[in-house]
Amino acid sequence: MYLTPSMAKLVHEFNKLPGIGPKTAQRLAFHILKISATEARVLASAIIEVKDRITNCPICYNITEDSPCSICKDTTRDHGLICVVEQPSDIIAMEKTRVYKGDYHVLQGAISPLDGIRPDNLRINELLMRIQQEKVKEIIIATDSDVEGEATALYLERLLRTMVARVSRIAHGIPIGSNIEYTDEVTLSKALESRRIL
Amino acid sequence: MYLTPSMAKLVHEFNKLPGIGPKTAQRLAFHILKISATEARVLASAIIEVKDRITNCPICYNITEDSPCSICKDTTRDHGLICVVEQPSDIIAMEKTRVYKGDYHVLQGAISPLDGIRPDNLRINELLMRIQQEKVKEIIIATDSDVEGEATALYLERLLRTMVARVSRIAHGIPIGSNIEYTDEVTLSKALESRRIL
Repeated sequence: MYLTPSMAKLVHEFNKLPGIGPKTAQRLAFHILKISATEARVLASAIIEVKDRITNCPICYNITEDSPCSICKDTTRDHGLICVVEQPSDIIAMEKTRVYKGDYHVLQGAISPLDGIRPDNLRINELLMRIQQEKVKEIIIATDSDVEGEATALYLERLLRTMVARVSRIAHGIPIGSNIEYTDEVTLSKALESRRIL
Repeated sequence: MYLTPSMAKLVHEFNKLPGIGPKTAQRLAFHILKISATEARVLASAIIEVKDRITNCPICYNITEDSPCSICKDTTRDHGLICVVEQPSDIIAMEKTRVYKGDYHVLQGAISPLDGIRPDNLRINELLMRIQQEKVKEIIIATDSDVEGEATALYLERLLRTMVARVSRIAHGIPIGSNIEYTDEVTLSKALESRRIL
């Protein structure tokens, strides 16, 4: 009632974005008012371009503008290694480590019966096809460590055990730089259980 | 390098918005990827529409889609009362009180010699014209209580004193609901200075 119709609409749209409350949405809308029409158009077209240009890689189901994606195409990477993740954003986190040089496979979610997500809603069949067609030496399961991620990891481990020479799960334990004192008991139990002999 | 070109561009554009850091920008960009193309288009067009439709009211310089704005047009409001604010967003805050029933005048900034903003860069001449043309009984100065806002208030008070029957400044003191103990010394000094006789 205090905003003009187009401002109210913009605030409403910004408010739909994750982590943007009504106050931030209003601040963003007033920012859009302040910037030049050209700058606003650049932002608007960036939003539309992302939707127009990005597809999923037909091999690994990561987001890409080329087909196949730059990782699947990269001949310097080890295509015998596949790291299975839930979301494309997980690949960004993995790539930032600069340690991993294998391929990926994006499940596009995790098994979650409560949300109606069963194994056949994920890209698991596509992973099985890759395993049959490519020479896969190892599958690294890097799903999240929440309930859904752990359930998915367990499901994949049982499914793939007989098909691939090695199936592994990324390690869970105390994050680097944190104190034992402030580590939650579940993480600490897991860290004890997974201790390495020195 | 880990994002596709169009995603990198969208993250860059979101990162330009106030209060949106690189992590939030990335989360927002992935959110745009997830929503439908229609929803993305609605957001993009809301951004453009705001720039296309909104102008300044030729009387009070508030943002508006009509000319003059709904407040200046409203015959139930007291047009003899003008509340002077820095920004259109200040009007929203004032209107939310539901107490004020007069008009507004948006300066579009505050005097700030360091940023090169002098009185003639603000809508002060337009305010003087309104005072000459309309029957103004009182000007309420509601600029911010920071250095620039106080300088602007002082400037306006001196300028308008002889032209308008009453020039007032909104009260400064302890915010309702807060403790004396945690009130900063400048606010507390001001609250003491502006004490009301009971």
